[in-house]
Amino acid sequence: MTSGERTEVRVAVLGCGTVGTEVVRLLTEQADELTARVGAPVRLVGVAVRRPHRHPWLTETFGDLVTTDAAALVARDDVDVVVEVIGGIEPVRTLLLEALKSGKSVVTANKALLAEDGPALAEAADASGADLYYEASVAGAIPLLRPLRESLAGDRITRVAGIVNGTSNFILSAMASGGTSYADALEEATQLGYAEADPSADVDGYDAASKAAILATLSFHTRVTASDVHREGMREVSAADIAAAKLLGCTIKLLAICERVHDADGTESVSARVYPAMVPSSHPLASVDGAFNAVFVEAEAAGQLMFYGQGAGGAPTASAVLGDLVAVARNHVAAGRGPRESAYASLPVRAIGAVPTRYHVDLEVADREGVLAAIAGEFARNGVSIAAVRQTGGSAGAADGDPTQARLTVVTHTAPDSALAGTVAAIQELDVVNGVNSVLRVEGLGRAVSALGVAG
Amino acid sequence: MTSGERTEVRVAVLGCGTVGTEVVRLLTEQADELTARVGAPVRLVGVAVRRPHRHPWLTETFGDLVTTDAAALVARDDVDVVVEVIGGIEPVRTLLLEALKSGKSVVTANKALLAEDGPALAEAADASGADLYYEASVAGAIPLLRPLRESLAGDRITRVAGIVNGTSNFILSAMASGGTSYADALEEATQLGYAEADPSADVDGYDAASKAAILATLSFHTRVTASDVHREGMREVSAADIAAAKLLGCTIKLLAICERVHDADGTESVSARVYPAMVPSSHPLASVDGAFNAVFVEAEAAGQLMFYGQGAGGAPTASAVLGDLVAVARNHVAAGRGPRESAYASLPVRAIGAVPTRYHVDLEVADREGVLAAIAGEFARNGVSIAAVRQTGGSAGAADGDPTQARLTVVTHTAPDSALAGTVAAIQELDVVNGVNSVLRVEGLGRAVSALGVAG
Repeated sequence: MTSGERTEVRVAVLGCGTVGTEVVRLLTEQADELTARVGAPVRLVGVAVRRPHRHPWLTETFGDLVTTDAAALVARDDVDVVVEVIGGIEPVRTLLLEALKSGKSVVTANKALLAEDGPALAEAADASGADLYYEASVAGAIPLLRPLRESLAGDRITRVAGIVNGTSNFILSAMASGGTSYADALEEATQLGYAEADPSADVDGYDAASKAAILATLSFHTRVTASDVHREGMREVSAADIAAAKLLGCTIKLLAICERVHDADGTESVSARVYPAMVPSSHPLASVDGAFNAVFVEAEAAGQLMFYGQGAGGAPTASAVLGDLVAVARNHVAAGRGPRESAYASLPVRAIGAVPTRYHVDLEVADREGVLAAIAGEFARNGVSIAAVRQTGGSAGAADGDPTQARLTVVTHTAPDSALAGTVAAIQELDVVNGVNSVLRVEGLGRAVSALGVAG
Repeated sequence: MTSGERTEVRVAVLGCGTVGTEVVRLLTEQADELTARVGAPVRLVGVAVRRPHRHPWLTETFGDLVTTDAAALVARDDVDVVVEVIGGIEPVRTLLLEALKSGKSVVTANKALLAEDGPALAEAADASGADLYYEASVAGAIPLLRPLRESLAGDRITRVAGIVNGTSNFILSAMASGGTSYADALEEATQLGYAEADPSADVDGYDAASKAAILATLSFHTRVTASDVHREGMREVSAADIAAAKLLGCTIKLLAICERVHDADGTESVSARVYPAMVPSSHPLASVDGAFNAVFVEAEAAGQLMFYGQGAGGAPTASAVLGDLVAVARNHVAAGRGPRESAYASLPVRAIGAVPTRYHVDLEVADREGVLAAIAGEFARNGVSIAAVRQTGGSAGAADGDPTQARLTVVTHTAPDSALAGTVAAIQELDVVNGVNSVLRVEGLGRAVSALGVAG
């Protein structure tokens, strides 16, 4: 069990894009510090890249260590740890399964693969006693998975809600602060390098859904895959939504939400979902702007926690990868291993329709007697309880505007999402409703929606 | 290396106050979940308390497990892990050294002991191969030490600045928001149970200084003890200071600051200090109110990170203790161990006088020609560069007030703290200076002090 047993830890890096370049750079520049922290030298023994000619720095610095044959590198006997920063499902899945099966530990930033096929990787790791670490897969540099997996291992996590996609948060922040349109904000994000040419993974919530799956799996000791996550993107968020949120003292954020949900009989299940939602401005998540990430965690004993930092970028992601690499290398030196997969709870995943949520509905209605009764009746018919109503404009209201038309803002209590969606659909058909300004879920997250005096 | 090798992990708990009670409660209530997470049952084999008759619940529930003889409990062969939540230096130091020397792992929340004699404990742990975990000693439930020690192990931490004492933050928040005096705010904190009968540890910064020592030790791989930490409490923060901070767009927080400091020749040293300082309102730490804690971390690759949550209280602290206990138990089951002490860097600790800081000075001055020149000359004589000056009142200024008197607000660039302190002392002696409203350090933390247009 002493550091003298192994003389060094030999590392293979797969992929050399933005993150991989930083990993290789830090690995060599900070070699002395890493050696001191690990208790043995950490030596780079190979880097696999598809097109070496695109990386002249790499080939000049490392020469023979650079290879195009990732499979051969992974298969080498003199590799102890495989660091994967290629991304995507194949050929990475095959490579990492091979590595784990042969007892090599894996450090990966690959959220898509973990969210699609994490259990297969975890089983391969457990079978051979290898380590599988993936801190960089969610929220970049923010230490989040280790706290969930280790620091809170003696607690019961009840809820994780976070901004885990920097691109969509940058766009929403720009729309909220500058009155910029979605299209203009997206263009700015693309020019700044935050958004890809095809922004779908970010703005349609696929990236956040992968992260939600990973977070839910760790938080609830239950296997949750990307396909279990209800996903709505933020392309449809309009200027009217932004304005409606402001009116309510809220900000719109694309949230990844994982929570324990309880039936009336106490049966427990898990909800994992991604959608744009209103968050009260007083909530710590509301002030997370630009490309930053932040994750709010609630646990029974620990209470409310928040983790904040850079969710993407070469250096921040490399920091997380290297933190994992040091942990895996220490385990290797000590002939031990890190915490294995913990999926003992195996809770069912609840469909979105049965998950309690809370809606905000902002309507244009006729300003005449009985309108509120008609609308309130529709909510009641669907079993949805109204938390607050505010009427503005019309004969009783603001000076400007059509006196025959009023604006009605409703915030509901929590109800099954399908009942809320059904209510909204029914209300739009009412004669007295002339238009819908905004329909969005409200994530009170335990705090007050002060503008309407609603307890969160 | 399989979970079958050891049949259970046997735990002794020393102390049964607020935290200990929660630890024992969670340990028994969540026994099944802990077993699943550890891979073996975690069994309470003894609880040492000085006065069992004060804990009827404990003796009724656990009967023979309760003992008054902590030393005998620690010495038992059938104890694998000792959890210490007594606090204070002796007899705890002797007990924990005995436990570690005999190979028993230790989980402790004892910041005072760690800050005074952490190296002795670390050496005892390393000598026998036992684990020493102490997440609960800093910032209660917030997973902070594990991220510093493990997640950022592949990065270089440059700065840690945080609100790590909830009592003083509660008092400062009350003073800032309600115009409450220090004395009234302290009384409210005492009534709410946040402050002790003798509040010195909190308001004089001793508690925060212990935490700063622990944070600096982990962040910079250098042994830093409480006596190395420069400490100023917050008893002297006045209503005038609060008002001056508001005028500058800042909030006053009692900060624990640990940072790498570089000489002109590149020589690196460490500064660890605790004092009340102005923080720009736009900074995430500024909005941390009440008894909450938050710690801002800057690292070379990861960039800026923040951790937020409850820093004290029975349940939150117990959450951190149990997280450590699960980690230690997992290590025990796997016959491995966690990261050992990392003090390889052994950087010198710099005295406060030589640490670069930035001052804010708010003066009442005569409103006549040459005043600014006299004051600016004093700064220059001490080698301190002025970042911004604002003059209000007087003949050129506000409508109300004495036209022969002006208010001068100065924010400096960074300079050695002794030069700044010397300048302030000299300025107070100038004829043209009629009074000092406020002198406080400004921790820009890399952000803009917007009110005066000073880059942070």
